Amino acid sequence: MKVLVVGANGQIGKHLVSFIQDSNSLEAKAMVRKQEQVFFFEKSGVETAVVDLEQDIERIAKAAEGVDAIVFTAGSGPHTGKDKTILIDLDGAVKTIEAAKVAGVKRFIMISSFDTRREAIQEASSSFAPYVAAKHYADEWLKSTDLDYTIIHPGLLTNDKGTGQVEAAEEVERGEIPREDVASVIVATLENEATIGKEFQIVTGNQPIKEAIKSI
Amino acid sequence: MKVLVVGANGQIGKHLVSFIQDSNSLEAKAMVRKQEQVFFFEKSGVETAVVDLEQDIERIAKAAEGVDAIVFTAGSGPHTGKDKTILIDLDGAVKTIEAAKVAGVKRFIMISSFDTRREAIQEASSSFAPYVAAKHYADEWLKSTDLDYTIIHPGLLTNDKGTGQVEAAEEVERGEIPREDVASVIVATLENEATIGKEFQIVTGNQPIKEAIKSI
Repeated sequence: MKVLVVGANGQIGKHLVSFIQDSNSLEAKAMVRKQEQVFFFEKSGVETAVVDLEQDIERIAKAAEGVDAIVFTAGSGPHTGKDKTILIDLDGAVKTIEAAKVAGVKRFIMISSFDTRREAIQEASSSFAPYVAAKHYADEWLKSTDLDYTIIHPGLLTNDKGTGQVEAAEEVERGEIPREDVASVIVATLENEATIGKEFQIVTGNQPIKEAIKSI
Repeated sequence: MKVLVVGANGQIGKHLVSFIQDSNSLEAKAMVRKQEQVFFFEKSGVETAVVDLEQDIERIAKAAEGVDAIVFTAGSGPHTGKDKTILIDLDGAVKTIEAAKVAGVKRFIMISSFDTRREAIQEASSSFAPYVAAKHYADEWLKSTDLDYTIIHPGLLTNDKGTGQVEAAEEVERGEIPREDVASVIVATLENEATIGKEFQIVTGNQPIKEAIKSI
């Protein structure tokens, strides 16, 4: 299974590409924004595509040609300018979803925010609310398609080393999770078709990742 | 017909409330953000509701109870912080649409931007693109409902006195239009059920407004 990683140069993205390359059944194609980000992946023999998510759907669709799954883990992050929040976290995600349709890629895994329900927008601080809203609308857009989607809602991301142990369910208590473990969760999700059509929250816990994903 | 004007204290909104009050068949309810904006309307005998579009759907639905139509002409404008672009121009619009459903109001008129197609986001300048994207997603959300909607796409807004003469069609050449004329177009749209399910661009032209709206 060939997997287009959108946002491959991000912190989750880099772990993910590396885990995909280590797996027997998966192969990565790294989509990055800038030409200078290509070398990091090419030196490990990973195929790349240079596309800025502010470009049009056709450009993204071309990168998605011939892959079997797309993982959207790009993000402007909650602390960039709010113009990028709408143009990347919302519009970039929607364009990637539409590109999946154009390229005929059915499997789509969205890395979302911990809580993107309508209520979460209302409850968020004024500086975080625009980001939650952007992720909300991107998730809603994905759910309205007939793609084979899974939406992953990770807790507070850290750069700690992965523990390999998580808690995963439709609703879990708020907590932290290392980016490395999120990447492992994505791999386990790609390898488990029972996750199609589902969304779940994930934080550090005490179940091995593969088992936790099976129990979703 | 009682009409909830969302964004009544805006420049289009003030003209609109005044025109509605002057008409025989329409009655305005002005929804404003702040208590101090109430007096302007109450002194002319216009009913008001104080709701901030960052509040929840239920608050907006309460303001919409018992009205026959909603006009969304609120806007953070293209020059405010981009956080407000997503929280007002997109999320505030969507919450108003959802509030219409909750309150059982079928008729919904959206004042959009001149061009909110996918292509327009790509073609917009980087400072304007977030605003176009927000209006794009708000319009898309409205079109996916079964409300009796009309989407009005005015050209470049000016504070010139209205001429009463416009050009209106699905696609017209880019041009200016006084806010006063946009308000008259909204009234003509409210009075013409043939506009339901349609969207049109509007600029200053040489057809009387009522006629122009009839020809849509």
